[in-house]
Amino acid sequence: MAKHLLLVSTSTTHGTGYLDHCAGPIQDLLGGRRQVLFVPYALFDLDAYTAKARERFARMGYELTSVHEAADPVAAVAAAEALFIGGGNTFRLLARLYEKGLLAPIRTRVAAGMPYVGTSAGSNVACVTIRTTNDMPIVQPPSFDALQLVPFNLNPHYLDPDPGSTHMGETREERLLQFLEENDKIVVGLREGSMLRVGDESIELLGAPGARIFQRGQAPREVRPGDALDFLLRGPA
Amino acid sequence: MAKHLLLVSTSTTHGTGYLDHCAGPIQDLLGGRRQVLFVPYALFDLDAYTAKARERFARMGYELTSVHEAADPVAAVAAAEALFIGGGNTFRLLARLYEKGLLAPIRTRVAAGMPYVGTSAGSNVACVTIRTTNDMPIVQPPSFDALQLVPFNLNPHYLDPDPGSTHMGETREERLLQFLEENDKIVVGLREGSMLRVGDESIELLGAPGARIFQRGQAPREVRPGDALDFLLRGPA
Repeated sequence: MAKHLLLVSTSTTHGTGYLDHCAGPIQDLLGGRRQVLFVPYALFDLDAYTAKARERFARMGYELTSVHEAADPVAAVAAAEALFIGGGNTFRLLARLYEKGLLAPIRTRVAAGMPYVGTSAGSNVACVTIRTTNDMPIVQPPSFDALQLVPFNLNPHYLDPDPGSTHMGETREERLLQFLEENDKIVVGLREGSMLRVGDESIELLGAPGARIFQRGQAPREVRPGDALDFLLRGPA
Repeated sequence: MAKHLLLVSTSTTHGTGYLDHCAGPIQDLLGGRRQVLFVPYALFDLDAYTAKARERFARMGYELTSVHEAADPVAAVAAAEALFIGGGNTFRLLARLYEKGLLAPIRTRVAAGMPYVGTSAGSNVACVTIRTTNDMPIVQPPSFDALQLVPFNLNPHYLDPDPGSTHMGETREERLLQFLEENDKIVVGLREGSMLRVGDESIELLGAPGARIFQRGQAPREVRPGDALDFLLRGPA
């Protein structure tokens, strides 16, 4: 079975509702499946988060249950038709995935063809590590190593430098160049409104804002929907 | 001997030169001492960073040497008259402090009265943990626990929400409220241009922009230079 991933930069774009901008790609990815397992661990209030996701997926025609409601989360993943990991704090999310022993079960199911939808933190944890998250390290996971469903890293909510800014903190681009000083991994800076559809041998960028590619020894460069992105599946040369 | 700390939000404020806005407070803190030991580990190019700091401290009348130039970094800390830890990436800085075995030696010297100046990441690592850094987790330190020279956490480069923003990533305040969901520690959101002067029994806020205090179960609140901040030295009630 082939891999089916949809990695979305943000759950909500400015001026639209929750998951509105990616509802079509989510439905394309899920195909005829009707049940979705939700992973709400990136936020603190798991019940409220689940209610929000459940209502939105119901409007798309899916029944959503949350892994935090399952007596046996590992069994819930093993039985899932499709998985949706929502955004919030990436450190908290990854720490809970380790705590519940869910990394290996998710990898196994994705390898077997289960569709995986991630938004923001849920897209970060699909990658090699969470070393390119924007989030504050509010909890300490046992490792920054993530699900490694793809051989690259993502920076969700990618933000271009503001030429009028008087703020002296590092720009996003400066932070990602610091990442490359320490890590020889490609990073996709995924602007809000953009997403990646990833299969075993194929990868496609969706959404008008495009993305910016960061790779050691190369100047950052723009990619647009339709551009060939297969190099991302091969990793650094 | 009493503790002598100066914890600065940013090394450079908009429109001024490196350390210009905090040169006076640094000289006040250092008193008659003439030698400063520099810790450049937050940046990648240690020699270039040291040259920049050396030139700036020379203009203030101090001779600066870097811990990375010392054959024995632990011995260099033990012999230091004063310490300056510069900004950059907080994860990289803390990882190197662990790697070089410098946390305990620095704590010992600070407890014995050695003045400590931190800017940005150098202020983060003086606190309980680095869980309120803004930086990208580009390397994984063995622990987020930091020097614990003070019983609170700092958020350097504290930035107020921009009401005109269309960006959907969390605001700084939202990130710090997420920190409080997981940690019962007070956080000082230190705006650029602000700094804290900390002694054993005293703490003073310097700089016009002020700071914002985040504490579990309380609404975030503003503090200004001159306000009583002794509650920070006692920790959460």
